Parts: sequence; structure tokens; C-alpha cells
Amino acid sequence: MPDARPVPEATVILADSETCRDLFYATRFAVGDPILYFALHGRKYLVASDLEIGRALKEADVHGVLPLSRYTKRLKRRGVKTPLLPDVLAEILASRGVKRARVPHDFPVYAAEILRKAGVKVCPSMPPFFPERAVKTEREIAAICDAARATAVAIRRGVALLRRTKVRDGRLVLGGDALTSERLRAEIDVALLRAGLVAKDTIVAGGTQAADPHHRGTGPLRAHWPIVLDVFPRDGTTGYYADITRTVLRGRPSKRVSDMYGAVREAHAAAVAKIAAGVPAKEVHAAAADTLKAHGFVTGRAPGGGMQGFFHGTGHGLGLAVHEGPRVAAVDDPLPAGAVVTVEPGLYYPRLGGIRHEDDVVVREGGAENLVDLDLPFVV
Amino acid sequence: MPDARPVPEATVILADSETCRDLFYATRFAVGDPILYFALHGRKYLVASDLEIGRALKEADVHGVLPLSRYTKRLKRRGVKTPLLPDVLAEILASRGVKRARVPHDFPVYAAEILRKAGVKVCPSMPPFFPERAVKTEREIAAICDAARATAVAIRRGVALLRRTKVRDGRLVLGGDALTSERLRAEIDVALLRAGLVAKDTIVAGGTQAADPHHRGTGPLRAHWPIVLDVFPRDGTTGYYADITRTVLRGRPSKRVSDMYGAVREAHAAAVAKIAAGVPAKEVHAAAADTLKAHGFVTGRAPGGGMQGFFHGTGHGLGLAVHEGPRVAAVDDPLPAGAVVTVEPGLYYPRLGGIRHEDDVVVREGGAENLVDLDLPFVV
Repeated sequence: MPDARPVPEATVILADSETCRDLFYATRFAVGDPILYFALHGRKYLVASDLEIGRALKEADVHGVLPLSRYTKRLKRRGVKTPLLPDVLAEILASRGVKRARVPHDFPVYAAEILRKAGVKVCPSMPPFFPERAVKTEREIAAICDAARATAVAIRRGVALLRRTKVRDGRLVLGGDALTSERLRAEIDVALLRAGLVAKDTIVAGGTQAADPHHRGTGPLRAHWPIVLDVFPRDGTTGYYADITRTVLRGRPSKRVSDMYGAVREAHAAAVAKIAAGVPAKEVHAAAADTLKAHGFVTGRAPGGGMQGFFHGTGHGLGLAVHEGPRVAAVDDPLPAGAVVTVEPGLYYPRLGGIRHEDDVVVREGGAENLVDLDLPFVV
Repeated sequence: MPDARPVPEATVILADSETCRDLFYATRFAVGDPILYFALHGRKYLVASDLEIGRALKEADVHGVLPLSRYTKRLKRRGVKTPLLPDVLAEILASRGVKRARVPHDFPVYAAEILRKAGVKVCPSMPPFFPERAVKTEREIAAICDAARATAVAIRRGVALLRRTKVRDGRLVLGGDALTSERLRAEIDVALLRAGLVAKDTIVAGGTQAADPHHRGTGPLRAHWPIVLDVFPRDGTTGYYADITRTVLRGRPSKRVSDMYGAVREAHAAAVAKIAAGVPAKEVHAAAADTLKAHGFVTGRAPGGGMQGFFHGTGHGLGLAVHEGPRVAAVDDPLPAGAVVTVEPGLYYPRLGGIRHEDDVVVREGGAENLVDLDLPFVV
């Protein structure tokens, strides 16, 4: 009788769980160096080096932890001088009769070549690798909510520092010194650290720097210009992120800058109001973009080759990574119930600076549930 | 006449410069999302999205910045519905007659497939991708030295906190509360932040947790057990790392633990003394391993499946990544002059805890130059 069983396919990852959050999602194991993971017949395995095996046995949420050294020794006996991780993987898959491996799109090309030479068909899968990651459990939502609460506290700390500054010659001065982006960033990041969250590249950008959405900000902060505070730390315990942006101004805003702030807040509210389970992402994005356009804020090429106006998506999924699915942009995909996404329209003009307003919301059947509770005035 | 010119080969990276430090090395451009980089005929290029192009034009150390949108528009006109970054790369390479691409070993497999389908031969290169990265300039060494100085200050801050604790029922108590790994870590990380360095996963591990070299440490710290402080922050300005470990104990160590500390310090000194330009890495590693063995500390499988003794390399290169080349382990490669490496022997036994001592040194012609100035007693 012919064997009608399907060809066994393994799901394979070769990465560290710092970079590859799918690996952390699958194993809940925090590891800074590349490690082998595979899933077969519904069971999950890690292949751990001597350095990691003790911790993997204790901490990893998998069905088995195999010692890497067992396989490297076996391969060395067979004459492989320095067995690489993919050599070990090929050996393990061969010994289990696996002929197909489903891998992430960014699986290392050298590993794919080694598997192919060993007769394993490598099938890269475009993201999302684990589509179920986009839909959060209530426990995951609670972790993001906790992170958001601590982030809001840290932003308030930063704003409290800003409020203690005096305006002198167009600059913000505190205790005789110019208040810099670096100092304000440290104030926010320290508040986060004390709460157990790790921030990286917190944005504290004012003046013309803020007209670039990814500028971290450097040097003395200017009065009368918007200051963008974009804070996206990871909770050191749970591994989940929050991502909140507020824009504040110390001094007096111009009429045009006030209008810009009002337009961004309206665009934000319009996007949040549009969100509900099943709504195509592009409708949420259009709600934000159309509001900004209706206020007369045009998007296009800026002098010097950069862009100006509103030239990024309205939001992105948030969870074990600061950027993950689903996208809230000009894409057809409907937003699934249980997704956590940011809503962060912004406007950027080299001559006016930048303004962005960002909350984290849960997509629910009836609408959006906002996880961020942080009311601040524009002028502080 | 036949065309005798060599086939033009491009060097290609598709990554973010946070994960791929080679990309940061090549461009000095900090970017958190994947970006296209290629080098051709000695000239370096980035292909930047609308979101990054302004900053790339200003900050990136490359010969040209090409707008991604130009190519995605072109491909869309030709019927490619959603052009991916590798589609754009294939288009650019084709338009320049490039038939071969040298890529990092961990180049994404999906991108390799797209290039191959477009007729470009993809040649993965095992690390180091830029071998010249292992040899630091004096400017790079100064950046690591600055980071090491700030790290030493932060460790002193942590030890000062430890010294303020009282021993009660085998635990360390401060102001009535148990001193936890988390609190001591925050003390160290905050000191780093104030100096402009970002720490991730700082290790503050005591008790049996320290018997696992990668355990971050959690919960109340115990008296009479070694506490491992392994601190490896990145300088937010330069992007360079320091990596320093000290082991201290509050209370009274057992004879065996004191011997263990002495053995590790001797192993450390023996390894440092062995280092000089041209010395095979394995001789440095052997100097450490042999010293530990001579003191009667055996390495092997521990009860429960983990490892005990000295079961990691003696050190690793340090620079834009916390782990980079050259390795200081059982490998033949001679250490090059100008490399910066860690020297970090350790001993780990489930019943005794863990001890590790780590400095960062420059490999010089005449010997090792230690960048770390941090004398601490074992018992604090």
C-alpha cells in the first residue's frame, strides 16, 4: 500500500529572540545569540549550546531542548571540521525524515543553502510568520497597557521638567543652563528604567529637527517651536512595548503652528473613531489623511529632497515588537478584533517643525479601546 | 575582441543598522527599519524611503542616497503591484549591469531568491563581512575607552548601594526592604543613562542564578553568595560598546568560594598576560582554562543537564557590537594588533554560584592595553 502521509514539514527559525520576536513569541525564551528552533508534528524544540542549555531547560516554553554539543560531536566524528548551526539543523531534520522547512522571509541565506544541499526544500514565508501574533490575548493587552501606563508617567515627568524652564533669547533654560534634548531624554528614560522599562532612541526633537519624524533630537531646545516626545520602551519583564507620542510647546506658538496642532489632533480623533474590527486599514488611514488635507496641509517633496506634510502610515501593530502587524496604512486588509495598533498622524514642515500625536488602541468589535490615558495641553 | 573586464560585483546589505552593525560600520547611519545598501566600483549608496531620505542625505557617510519611491513608481508602471525592497535592488543592479552580489551570510533568503530570479548570482559571505572591522582605529578605541570609563563609574555606583545594605537572615536589606537584582540593575542602568549610555539586559545575578552565565538575575539578593555584575552598554552618541564584569560578595564567603574567586582572578591575569599581536587566540584561552584546571576546578555536565565549570570562551571582540570578531576561544586565528577584546574567564557551579571577571583590552604589539580601571575587593 502506498504511503499516503504528507511530506513532513518543519517550521524552522535560526535567530536570536532579541532580533526575531517571532522566536520569542514561539518560545518565550530570551536569548541574545542565534539559536536553532524547530516545530514538527505540533511539538516545539530548541537546540541549545552549553552556554544556554541550563536556562533553556528552565525557561523556554517548548516541548524539548536538545543539546547542540551532541550533534556537533556527531558531525565532527563524521569529518565535518567546524559544524555550523545549519549543519546541525540539517542533521536533525534528516534523522526525522523532514524534507521541507518553512522558514521566515529573512532566514539566513547561508543556512538555506546548507539545508538545500542536504536535500531539504526551503520555503521562505513572507511576514507575518505567525499571523496569530497580530491578535492579542487579554493577557498580552494587559502587558501593553501596563507598559503604556508607565510610559505616560515618564512623559509627564519630562513635561514637568519642561515646565520648570524659562524662555531666554528663544531658548529653554533651566537653572542657568540650556535644556537639551539629551537631558530631557535622560529624564524620561530614567523614569522608565525605574519602572522596569527599557527605552531605546526615545525621540525628543524640537525646532527643525522635529520636521524629520525619525530624528532623535540633539542640542538645546528652542522656545516657541513644537517639541515631539515619542517614547517607545519595552517592559523588561514581559517583553511588550508601548509607543506614545505627545507634542508640546513652551512659549508662544505661531498661528500656523497652532492650526497644525489642531489639525493633527482632529486627524487623530478621526482615525480612532474609524477603528473597529473588520474595518479596512486604508479607511482609517484615509480618515487621518483627509482631515489633514481638509485643513490645508499638503504632502509632497520638500526643498532639499526630503518630504513634507504627512508622509508616513497612520499606525502599526504593537506587541513584542515596536513595529509589527497589522499596518494602519493605505492597505486593504481589515483590522482584526484583538489587534493592538498605534494611531499616530503627524505633520512635518522644515519651516514649522513637526507635530505628532500617538496613542495605542485595541481593535474591538464596537470600536477602539484606548490604552493611553495622558491628557496634556499643547502649550505647557 | 573579447571583453576581458571582470564581471562587476556589488556588495549588498538589506537590513537595519541596529541589528546589522556592518551596515552601521559602512554608512554610520542609524536606522531602525530595513534599508538597501550597495557598494559598486568603490562607491557606497543607500536607497531610502520617504521617511528616511532627509536624514540619510544629511547623516549617512555614503556617496549617494537614491529615493526608493523613484524605483517603486517605475516598477509599478511596469505592472509590479507591490514592489518589495529586493525588487528595487534587482532593478538597480540590472540597470548597472551587475550580475553578482556579495551579501552577508544572514542576508534574507527571500531577497536572495528575488535577486536570483532576476539573474543576479548571490554569493553569501561568512562573517566577518568587513574583516577590517576587527582592527580598530585609535578613534574607535577612544570611543570604547570612554564607554568603559562610564561603565566603571556605574558599577561603582551599584557597589556603593550594596555596601549600604545590612545582612539579615541571609538576605541583603536596604532601608527595611530586601535589595533585589532589579533594584541594583536600575541603579547601574540609571547611572549609565545619565552618562548617555544605554544598557540592555545588565546582569545582576546572585545565588544559584549566577551559576548560569546568561541569567539576568531576579528577586532578592542573598548575602554570603557571589553577585555577578556584567554591564555592557552602548554609547548613544558613538554607537560603541563597553563590556565589564565584576563579582562581589556581601557577607562572608566560604573557603571554596574564596578559592574560586582567586582562581578566576589568576586565570584572568594569565590570559591578559598572554595577549599580544600575533598570538593565536587558543593560547590565550588555554592560559585561562589551564589556570582554572590547575586550581582543581573541573568543567563538565552538571546535574540537571546544564554545564558547570568554565564552559564559555575567554573573550570576544568588542566595538559596534557587544559580540564581534575576533574570538578569544579555542581557535587558531592570531589576534591582530588593534583589536579590542574582552577577557572574561568565569566559574559556575550550581552549589556555589558564579564568578566572572571581565576587562576590555586592546591587542598591541607588545602586549595588552587594559581599557578598564576598576579595582574592587571581592568582599564589599
